[in-house]
Amino acid sequence: MLELLALEAEGDDRFRATSTSEWPGRLYGGQVASQALRAATFTVDQERRPHSFHAYFVRGGRPGVPVVLDVARTRDGRSFSTRTVDATQEGETILSMVASFHAGESGDDWQDSGLPSVPRPDELSPRQRQTGRWRGGDGFEMRPVRAVEGMRIHPCWVRFDGPIGDDPQLHACALAYISDRAIVGSVRAPGSTMQINTASLDHAVWFHRPCRVDEWLLFCVDPVTNYGARGLARGTFHTEEGVLVASLAQEALLRPVSLS
Amino acid sequence: MLELLALEAEGDDRFRATSTSEWPGRLYGGQVASQALRAATFTVDQERRPHSFHAYFVRGGRPGVPVVLDVARTRDGRSFSTRTVDATQEGETILSMVASFHAGESGDDWQDSGLPSVPRPDELSPRQRQTGRWRGGDGFEMRPVRAVEGMRIHPCWVRFDGPIGDDPQLHACALAYISDRAIVGSVRAPGSTMQINTASLDHAVWFHRPCRVDEWLLFCVDPVTNYGARGLARGTFHTEEGVLVASLAQEALLRPVSLS
Repeated sequence: MLELLALEAEGDDRFRATSTSEWPGRLYGGQVASQALRAATFTVDQERRPHSFHAYFVRGGRPGVPVVLDVARTRDGRSFSTRTVDATQEGETILSMVASFHAGESGDDWQDSGLPSVPRPDELSPRQRQTGRWRGGDGFEMRPVRAVEGMRIHPCWVRFDGPIGDDPQLHACALAYISDRAIVGSVRAPGSTMQINTASLDHAVWFHRPCRVDEWLLFCVDPVTNYGARGLARGTFHTEEGVLVASLAQEALLRPVSLS
Repeated sequence: MLELLALEAEGDDRFRATSTSEWPGRLYGGQVASQALRAATFTVDQERRPHSFHAYFVRGGRPGVPVVLDVARTRDGRSFSTRTVDATQEGETILSMVASFHAGESGDDWQDSGLPSVPRPDELSPRQRQTGRWRGGDGFEMRPVRAVEGMRIHPCWVRFDGPIGDDPQLHACALAYISDRAIVGSVRAPGSTMQINTASLDHAVWFHRPCRVDEWLLFCVDPVTNYGARGLARGTFHTEEGVLVASLAQEALLRPVSLS
């Protein structure tokens, strides 16, 4: 993942990203989103950190074709910076993002929900795991927890298992990277058995508090609604101590196969 | 409100909007967001309806200064159209939006939550109302419900009280208009007494199902978290029959007055 986020500057707020892929056929959406956010951070003061981004997956990205990231500096205000990023392949937009950065300020510290009642990553018994450990070629280790009655659909412990340093902007981009992983399946109505083709449509992440992706984070996703071949899901990232570090929302296409 | 959404075409996907305001000093954010969405709809096939938009409030809008809306046609695909809209006053961006439109398709029909247990708009006793009826100069009538223990913070019945016709795109824009009303106060941590200055930062709406704004909709907003002088809230719009027609998310600035 760190290689994917090491963009090449081409001047005039244009960056070039590699487009390797673990899967044939289509780039992982979180990869393109994290590269777009990374490009935006390169045009913003180091002290301003991304507090949110909103992105549309406009076209499926093709592995092996360079991704060009054009950043527009919409505004640098007194305490916020706003950026738009257009990610293209061969001149065609594959992702359209708006992101905002905020200098640190103080205020109330409150969250509506703590850590759901699930086993800690090191306490997961084989029965409590949905699958075995999984460590991808991208450096992230994921430990999905078997869903229990009344609990969120797909709780999963995630952690970047490698040296990543202390740059808060890079940690935010890494969280953006993993935030699109396996989420489309969680958008579906519980119990639905319809054969569908899926794709992410839009994706938003709010970075509430500083976080480190090289420490365990519990990634939960809840479906909200399905209708008209689309679905919305909401997600959260909590630390092991129960601190809510980020929220996300994703809308996905859930198209019945017979109509594809 | 209908006058606010009657944009003047200036060619090349540029539109001009009026910037009247009920309040001095600053334009209502939902007004600019709904005008930007309206501008986007004017560049999209009538059969494709907005299914979501994501917007940043980049600067406070000034009443009396014309708002210029520039739409970029990011993509017209087989079943989706994507647009970006830049809303400016005197050349400065006040709102940056990405929106997407979808032709009708069929799929699963499911929602996670029905109507919260609140009195119907016509059954509200004086004790159950937070305030009396309120009908703004914009044509919307709002009937806030007094919050009860354990319930969402600010449930409010809303309805556009006038002839608005049957254009689904216009109804979606009208929902966008009202979706930013009084929401910033609902982002705050429950019980917080800190003196703060507030402003909307980003705003997203997902239009799940067709809806009419001239029928009663229950507008609920829940705070999610407050930290670092920012807060996130989530909201829903249900019909009187309990159908979830739209969801929203808004991040707001909650800046302690002493630090302003």
